[in-house]
Amino acid sequence: MLKKLLITGANGNLGAVCRERLAPIAESVRLSARKGLGEAAPHEEIVYCDLSDKDAVEALVDGCDGIVHMGGQATEAKWETIRSANIDGMFNLYEAARKSSVTPRIVFASSNHAIGYHKQTDRLDAKSPTRPDGLYGVSKVFGEAMASMYHDKFGIETACVRIGSCFPEPRNHRMLSTWMSYDDFILMIERIFMVPKLGCPIIYGASANDASWWDNREVAYIGWQPKDNAEAYRAKVDAEAERPGLDDVNAVYHGGAFCADGIHED
Amino acid sequence: MLKKLLITGANGNLGAVCRERLAPIAESVRLSARKGLGEAAPHEEIVYCDLSDKDAVEALVDGCDGIVHMGGQATEAKWETIRSANIDGMFNLYEAARKSSVTPRIVFASSNHAIGYHKQTDRLDAKSPTRPDGLYGVSKVFGEAMASMYHDKFGIETACVRIGSCFPEPRNHRMLSTWMSYDDFILMIERIFMVPKLGCPIIYGASANDASWWDNREVAYIGWQPKDNAEAYRAKVDAEAERPGLDDVNAVYHGGAFCADGIHED
Amino acid sequence: MLKKLLITGANGNLGAVCRERLAPIAESVRLSARKGLGEAAPHEEIVYCDLSDKDAVEALVDGCDGIVHMGGQATEAKWETIRSANIDGMFNLYEAARKSSVTPRIVFASSNHAIGYHKQTDRLDAKSPTRPDGLYGVSKVFGEAMASMYHDKFGIETACVRIGSCFPEPRNHRMLSTWMSYDDFILMIERIFMVPKLGCPIIYGASANDASWWDNREVAYIGWQPKDNAEAYRAKVDAEAERPGLDDVNAVYHGGAFCADGIHED
Amino acid sequence: MLKKLLITGANGNLGAVCRERLAPIAESVRLSARKGLGEAAPHEEIVYCDLSDKDAVEALVDGCDGIVHMGGQATEAKWETIRSANIDGMFNLYEAARKSSVTPRIVFASSNHAIGYHKQTDRLDAKSPTRPDGLYGVSKVFGEAMASMYHDKFGIETACVRIGSCFPEPRNHRMLSTWMSYDDFILMIERIFMVPKLGCPIIYGASANDASWWDNREVAYIGWQPKDNAEAYRAKVDAEAERPGLDDVNAVYHGGAFCADGIHED
Amino acid sequence: MLKKLLITGANGNLGAVCRERLAPIAESVRLSARKGLGEAAPHEEIVYCDLSDKDAVEALVDGCDGIVHMGGQATEAKWETIRSANIDGMFNLYEAARKSSVTPRIVFASSNHAIGYHKQTDRLDAKSPTRPDGLYGVSKVFGEAMASMYHDKFGIETACVRIGSCFPEPRNHRMLSTWMSYDDFILMIERIFMVPKLGCPIIYGASANDASWWDNREVAYIGWQPKDNAEAYRAKVDAEAERPGLDDVNAVYHGGAFCADGIHED
Amino acid sequence: MLKKLLITGANGNLGAVCRERLAPIAESVRLSARKGLGEAAPHEEIVYCDLSDKDAVEALVDGCDGIVHMGGQATEAKWETIRSANIDGMFNLYEAARKSSVTPRIVFASSNHAIGYHKQTDRLDAKSPTRPDGLYGVSKVFGEAMASMYHDKFGIETACVRIGSCFPEPRNHRMLSTWMSYDDFILMIERIFMVPKLGCPIIYGASANDASWWDNREVAYIGWQPKDNAEAYRAKVDAEAERPGLDDVNAVYHGGAFCADGIHED
Repeated sequence: MLKKLLITGANGNLGAVCRERLAPIAESVRLSARKGLGEAAPHEEIVYCDLSDKDAVEALVDGCDGIVHMGGQATEAKWETIRSANIDGMFNLYEAARKSSVTPRIVFASSNHAIGYHKQTDRLDAKSPTRPDGLYGVSKVFGEAMASMYHDKFGIETACVRIGSCFPEPRNHRMLSTWMSYDDFILMIERIFMVPKLGCPIIYGASANDASWWDNREVAYIGWQPKDNAEAYRAKVDAEAERPGLDDVNAVYHGGAFCADGIHED
Repeated sequence: MLKKLLITGANGNLGAVCRERLAPIAESVRLSARKGLGEAAPHEEIVYCDLSDKDAVEALVDGCDGIVHMGGQATEAKWETIRSANIDGMFNLYEAARKSSVTPRIVFASSNHAIGYHKQTDRLDAKSPTRPDGLYGVSKVFGEAMASMYHDKFGIETACVRIGSCFPEPRNHRMLSTWMSYDDFILMIERIFMVPKLGCPIIYGASANDASWWDNREVAYIGWQPKDNAEAYRAKVDAEAERPGLDDVNAVYHGGAFCADGIHED
Repeated sequence: MLKKLLITGANGNLGAVCRERLAPIAESVRLSARKGLGEAAPHEEIVYCDLSDKDAVEALVDGCDGIVHMGGQATEAKWETIRSANIDGMFNLYEAARKSSVTPRIVFASSNHAIGYHKQTDRLDAKSPTRPDGLYGVSKVFGEAMASMYHDKFGIETACVRIGSCFPEPRNHRMLSTWMSYDDFILMIERIFMVPKLGCPIIYGASANDASWWDNREVAYIGWQPKDNAEAYRAKVDAEAERPGLDDVNAVYHGGAFCADGIHED
Repeated sequence: MLKKLLITGANGNLGAVCRERLAPIAESVRLSARKGLGEAAPHEEIVYCDLSDKDAVEALVDGCDGIVHMGGQATEAKWETIRSANIDGMFNLYEAARKSSVTPRIVFASSNHAIGYHKQTDRLDAKSPTRPDGLYGVSKVFGEAMASMYHDKFGIETACVRIGSCFPEPRNHRMLSTWMSYDDFILMIERIFMVPKLGCPIIYGASANDASWWDNREVAYIGWQPKDNAEAYRAKVDAEAERPGLDDVNAVYHGGAFCADGIHED
Repeated sequence: MLKKLLITGANGNLGAVCRERLAPIAESVRLSARKGLGEAAPHEEIVYCDLSDKDAVEALVDGCDGIVHMGGQATEAKWETIRSANIDGMFNLYEAARKSSVTPRIVFASSNHAIGYHKQTDRLDAKSPTRPDGLYGVSKVFGEAMASMYHDKFGIETACVRIGSCFPEPRNHRMLSTWMSYDDFILMIERIFMVPKLGCPIIYGASANDASWWDNREVAYIGWQPKDNAEAYRAKVDAEAERPGLDDVNAVYHGGAFCADGIHED
Repeated sequence: MLKKLLITGANGNLGAVCRERLAPIAESVRLSARKGLGEAAPHEEIVYCDLSDKDAVEALVDGCDGIVHMGGQATEAKWETIRSANIDGMFNLYEAARKSSVTPRIVFASSNHAIGYHKQTDRLDAKSPTRPDGLYGVSKVFGEAMASMYHDKFGIETACVRIGSCFPEPRNHRMLSTWMSYDDFILMIERIFMVPKLGCPIIYGASANDASWWDNREVAYIGWQPKDNAEAYRAKVDAEAERPGLDDVNAVYHGGAFCADGIHED
């Protein structure tokens, strides 16, 4: 059991899921975001913090033995936004972890957009080359590289999770492959903190979907076997979502719509 | 849902299964064989056609947006038979598809006999080299090559299914590895027509048998996970079928008895 | 069904499980150990035998069409012990098999200690290089090599089973990955004797554990799919066993504590 | 040294090279084509023969212990031409080899067009999947499958040579990668007939070009190491040939211009 | 031949080599650095520019059809320096390339420090996972990701060259493996600009050293075969440089001394 | 440069080559065999020693910082001979190395007979599974396992060299693939002692033969590139040696004639 778990980006979609469901794995939880965290529960501590502020991040991280790093910019944006949140933010986080009084184990919310330009007919595993599908994806490749370096140099362990589509239900045909249920997401985080030795693995964050494109065989040692399957929602998706055409990026690339995006400019 | 599904070889064993169970995936079904198709149901259209007759095949294919190509010679035979049905027939089918007013998606009934000379102790996937076990197997390698070329050159999508042993039940020890249930067969065809982008994959047509020799991991993107398992019939097979000896082709090669066959001559 | 099954090391932990549960697969069972086999049941025959005694082993093996070779030194020990039991013993066993009036199929109890120095973050399959973690592990690599040679040269089939941790329940965190239930162990042996052609495969002896480090995909042809999962015992293990630290050999290497062992000397 | 070497297609470009330079490896040479073979030298025998004539091919092949099969249709053509020369022709050749009084070793002139739709940025070896670039390429995949089957079933050994561009000099930028000199071509054929055991390998027929796309490492056992290098002609090619544009099929695909070709029709 | 070649970082070690020797491949050369470029030759144009100045970079790049990007921070440094030169600088460069009136082909000076934490006993190729050995190495992984994304999204071609040790001679034992001669460096750049289609390959920048750790087989299509070999300097290195001890980072890791470095702080 | 190099088996064929040519790499050389070492040169020390005598081996090894272990039984023999020389002998050598006042680096003369049952049409590298071709080959697999374990557990570095055919010239067709010249052999040993970090690699001991079956790419880091090529002797071999037939073990298996051998009995 963790002493103090830090959840960054705790006001976001997945951050809120973490806040609600990860309390049992830590004696206390420190929540962080730039705003909007509401009232702290008895086991909670709230710290407002901008990840690009190095000193603030150092204070935020100090004393935590677990970090679920959901913070940062969570979708495509213009460069300045991404650089500040995901580039500077990652450096600040790892510097803070290195200097912390206790060395934390970290879950880094990477993204399928780090490999978004691979084709859906190609199956990927942790050793597949990265092919980011935008500035956001590039920032995730950068984050994984930072985690790898701090592991090799300082022994800080990180699980880089290339999250697929983490929502209550799959909402379109692409998500029949990329969906991760909240239950599977939480189970994964629990396993990451439980395995005696973590190392610095790359994990694809998806449920046990029949139509999966991703292979987590190499990280089975963590002991995470997702239990849900997007297939259960196929009829509903067929009924409610339009099937993408043959050359639609949603039918061609792992990254889906991000591959049709240009560079965001001012 | 398909507009018009063509089933060739509709009077054969698997053709009849398709006829009976694929009606729900198409508005109407066109059935083809050289003879013996009986009476057409309301949603059916019957066209007698020899696959080696190029013009007839062109007429047969035109207007269909889906084809399940079960037609052709379905076991070892003398060369003239195989060439006419499986060599000329394949060329005619793809030429017809290329010229058709709508580009069809095709399921091609290839066969485990395209890889029949591999040893049962070797596990195969879609990238394993072909090793045909007779003229029939050679014609299936040819068919897969034709499908690949029409996909690369004209964008026609085909699922090349290396069918194992598709029967109501496994009937001997080799089928404990190669059996595909009718349910899994039909589910596979449904998924092939449902996936937004198919490409030109090679799929091993077998149920989720404990003793399988074949690995479909690379084509999981199609979303087909077979549900049946030949293991359920092991006791029955042990009781009713003689176990092959150590050097029996049925115990040595994927292709089983075909590997003991010579060239069929007049 | 076997005519006569020889179980060596029948007084050991797994030998006793075999004695109790393998009776149904053979018309009669010959049990061997150096001592302590108690009373023979009607279908049993008891032969006391030292594996380093070549003539005795020849007599022991003769006439058996199946051998489950659990005999020998089953953990780290000083060299003389290991050489006598596991080096000389293996040579004697295979020479006896070669000279026997019937050629036996053999299950060889190899060990995860043949690959013990691989890291737990690395997944292994039958083709992974060996990395023994002590003299015991080296003797198991030797045994696998002997089996391979007698297969290539004389056609004697052996399943080399790299047994993980075969106990009633997993007892510590490492066993959440390495545990094999008795049910799965017995099922595995049954399948090994049932498959028409065995060859000389390397099989990892573990249940279907969520946290497995080992991949048996290549030997699926045997038809063995374990049914148990150490995950069912995780809460109990967490409650009763101390979690190993980050650099504890039990958290780092497949072989666990063996990797901390030195050479046993007099 | 061979007793009698048959060269089919002896009136073609490469056939003529073989006729001129392979005399030293055989006691006598039988030359075959449909026409145009001129006068026979003392060590030569000339047989006019259509490969689609089964009986004629049987007579042609009988008694030869080596065959260099350069015959057949050597570039894209309409289906009837290819089927007759390369489909029927191959079957007739192998049936004749099977029935021959001496079992010949065969060099089959396959082609890079069997893998023509792979991208030039992808390196291929003998295990790469085929991707034919037209009917001609499909017929070469067929021929390789036929050779494989006659090897597995009847022990007839064939070297399937995927010839690149065999000319006196490389003539364009693509040939800086695909060129095979006549010297290297002849050396290759010599080695194929000299190696004690040949099996049924796939060999890429190219010189030791700096810019090669093909890897023959797996067939080094044949002992063929080409000596020439297209790089020696780079300046000349740069001076005389137009460099293809970025999306020109000659810069994109292994098969070059064949990939821009349609189906040849009447 | 290029119309206008931009060399960034032209005042650096390798930049100067490029300036001196790449003139023949372009009609004119634009040189860039923050300072110290001296006098322009007739075919040269000098532009002083800070890579973190987006507008300046846009002006710098516009109109160039080739770029050799040697600019940026070329060794470990504190974060602010690296971020400004190698993170912002790369984004600015690619944005400028995207907006340029002609699309340039780019040579990006990446570094072996992108894979520096791999062990010297492990051989790497273009598909090996990155393992950066410091902030500098992380910035190079970032740069390669940026190049990959602009290639997939906008078709801009980049050769990412993981430069080893480019000096007149190898100066220590590690450089017997990592050395690239100036001749091989220049030849490599020439080939990169000559190949009709480049794509976005990863190339290891080293000569044909006997003791190489890196495998460029996958990029042979570029046609670059280095001619020099560090082995020629072994005696001199043995005489002049101290051999590193068994656990010295210079004997253990690809990245050598960088792996012993901490994070540079103010 | 080594302080004291121990050469075991110094009276054998290769041992004598080592004695003659390795003097320059060590200040002094200790030679060992059971007999027949003649007179010691000034830099030499002669120690008669039976490798199965543990105490004698301990004394022999102590103080040596390099060992070339050519001792032991060097071809197929009966079990007692092999066990004493190659099984007990290896254990004694490594125990002596572990206890020595200086930790030696070791060259272990393993053999191609550790992989002898692979087919000549299959190319091997250091990761290929072992397939010993007799008791001698099994003892070599054992020796490599022992070396691996002492490296993982105690840091003792060994180069396991699978020697092909080390003679003045290749003498038959198989040796066109397996030959290693004395020059290449000596160069290899020099490199093994020179590389700063060795680890525990498996090296195939063969010259740069055109017809090689073995791939040393993974151990290029040692810096050994053989210079000779058996091809230079092809004409002579063709003239003097009989070519093996198609199914002759010398044409089928890496191990050649050893594969036809039975078990040596009294």
